[in-house]
Amino acid sequence: MTDVGRIDESSGMADYIESPQNARIKATARLRDRRARKQSGMILIDGARELMRAIDGGIEVVEAFVCQDLLISADANACVVRLKNAGADIVHTSAAAYGKLRYGERDDGIVAVARRPTPGLDSLTLREDSMIAVVECVEKPGNLGAILRTADAAGVTAVIASDARGDIYGANAIRASLGAVFTVPLFEATSADAYAWLRAANVSVFVATPDAEASYTSALYTGRFAIVLGAEASGISDVWRGDACRAIGLPMHGKIDSLNVSATAAVLFYEALRQRSAASSGLP
Amino acid sequence: MTDVGRIDESSGMADYIESPQNARIKATARLRDRRARKQSGMILIDGARELMRAIDGGIEVVEAFVCQDLLISADANACVVRLKNAGADIVHTSAAAYGKLRYGERDDGIVAVARRPTPGLDSLTLREDSMIAVVECVEKPGNLGAILRTADAAGVTAVIASDARGDIYGANAIRASLGAVFTVPLFEATSADAYAWLRAANVSVFVATPDAEASYTSALYTGRFAIVLGAEASGISDVWRGDACRAIGLPMHGKIDSLNVSATAAVLFYEALRQRSAASSGLP
Repeated sequence: MTDVGRIDESSGMADYIESPQNARIKATARLRDRRARKQSGMILIDGARELMRAIDGGIEVVEAFVCQDLLISADANACVVRLKNAGADIVHTSAAAYGKLRYGERDDGIVAVARRPTPGLDSLTLREDSMIAVVECVEKPGNLGAILRTADAAGVTAVIASDARGDIYGANAIRASLGAVFTVPLFEATSADAYAWLRAANVSVFVATPDAEASYTSALYTGRFAIVLGAEASGISDVWRGDACRAIGLPMHGKIDSLNVSATAAVLFYEALRQRSAASSGLP
Repeated sequence: MTDVGRIDESSGMADYIESPQNARIKATARLRDRRARKQSGMILIDGARELMRAIDGGIEVVEAFVCQDLLISADANACVVRLKNAGADIVHTSAAAYGKLRYGERDDGIVAVARRPTPGLDSLTLREDSMIAVVECVEKPGNLGAILRTADAAGVTAVIASDARGDIYGANAIRASLGAVFTVPLFEATSADAYAWLRAANVSVFVATPDAEASYTSALYTGRFAIVLGAEASGISDVWRGDACRAIGLPMHGKIDSLNVSATAAVLFYEALRQRSAASSGLP
């Protein structure tokens, strides 16, 4: 006896899984565990919006589990069609089987297994005016996600997660980024390797630190440059204190002694963008 | 029989509660419910850091429940001393009783009951160069908290939560603000009242909207002005579409169609600050 069956070949309906105990459901649910994702080289993507971004970003989606009763929006159904066209295996499930796969209380009706992107920095080609963001040791996946969302909006060329502590493709990072984790070129590296690569590529390095003497507004964001952001608790590592690095800070006028790292990122990315737009338009 | 007793008068030790069933513990735990807070006019503040900000901000802390085993940092103990000096009733509790009061998994060792601030806009005096932030219909308390934290840093004069949907003094808002909810002058009003007040006070009104034609960098943040931020889902209400309002937007260069409201707030507050610093220093 099997509970997987191709139930309607002629109409293009895909596989259907009824039982929450199904082996394929169980194997997929195990990918909620970070170590299982690491070992298998696969990640989970929840929700139609995030999956659309993944397809846009060229992520290889292997299979998608769909609970039709929850998949009510036109967007969600369009997403299933796109996934099918992209070669993903579509598996319809009962609500009970879907319940084993869903993330927390999310009821998107679609969860997919995708191959984890592992691009190396050597695959990144820079323009003369590329803006890079380095996010070191980010502890909270929500912060990385928020930074990626802002990096997408501000036209950041690439984000390097250096010495990352959490899984940059964990559910919270994907969610907080609204899927920008897939649309912004994203790299993982040690801080030492990231620094060496930036220097070799002739990239100016601005390091956001609360104790900087120079204001971020006094820096000139021209040519190729990188903005380095550190963890709120531990601060920036010594890698980013070398002579080639310029420390910049935001003025703090209040009683709280630090900004959230994603707020800092937003201010810096948009100041760089403002300077560039002003320079290209000839306005001050 | 009572489980409340003054256990060591001479050494200054305060009341001690052993039982999680104690009436005072139960009454305090009920304040986790928003309606109970509203009815009583009281709020709960978790953690030494947030309580220090509350004292700094002149909030009246009525009583504080302390679990000594969890209160290990010097900061936390300094906080208890400050609370005592400010006239708060200090109640020591067992771990079990404290467990009924704690918020989620927080183990700060201190939870306090404070009087909810309810200042009216008529109590707000503006300078000639005051910067006001209006946050309309914010759905996520974490976003309001993040905006308050950035407002504190950027020297925003006051924040008006207009048509607020959540409790601006809920645990998540307080936590996300790191206590800035108490250090930045914060007002609640309907959007209509807030708009009328701003107009009467001769405040220029800039409204952040994704569909604005004008870039936020083209606005001149001089004199008294307000920056209005709307909910991500529902957008800004029609109150803020009048002739006296100027719509401004951030350039969006990516695939995601909106920025997080707290990222937008950070960019706008710091651009206003940058313009002012440049104007006062005579630099471009």
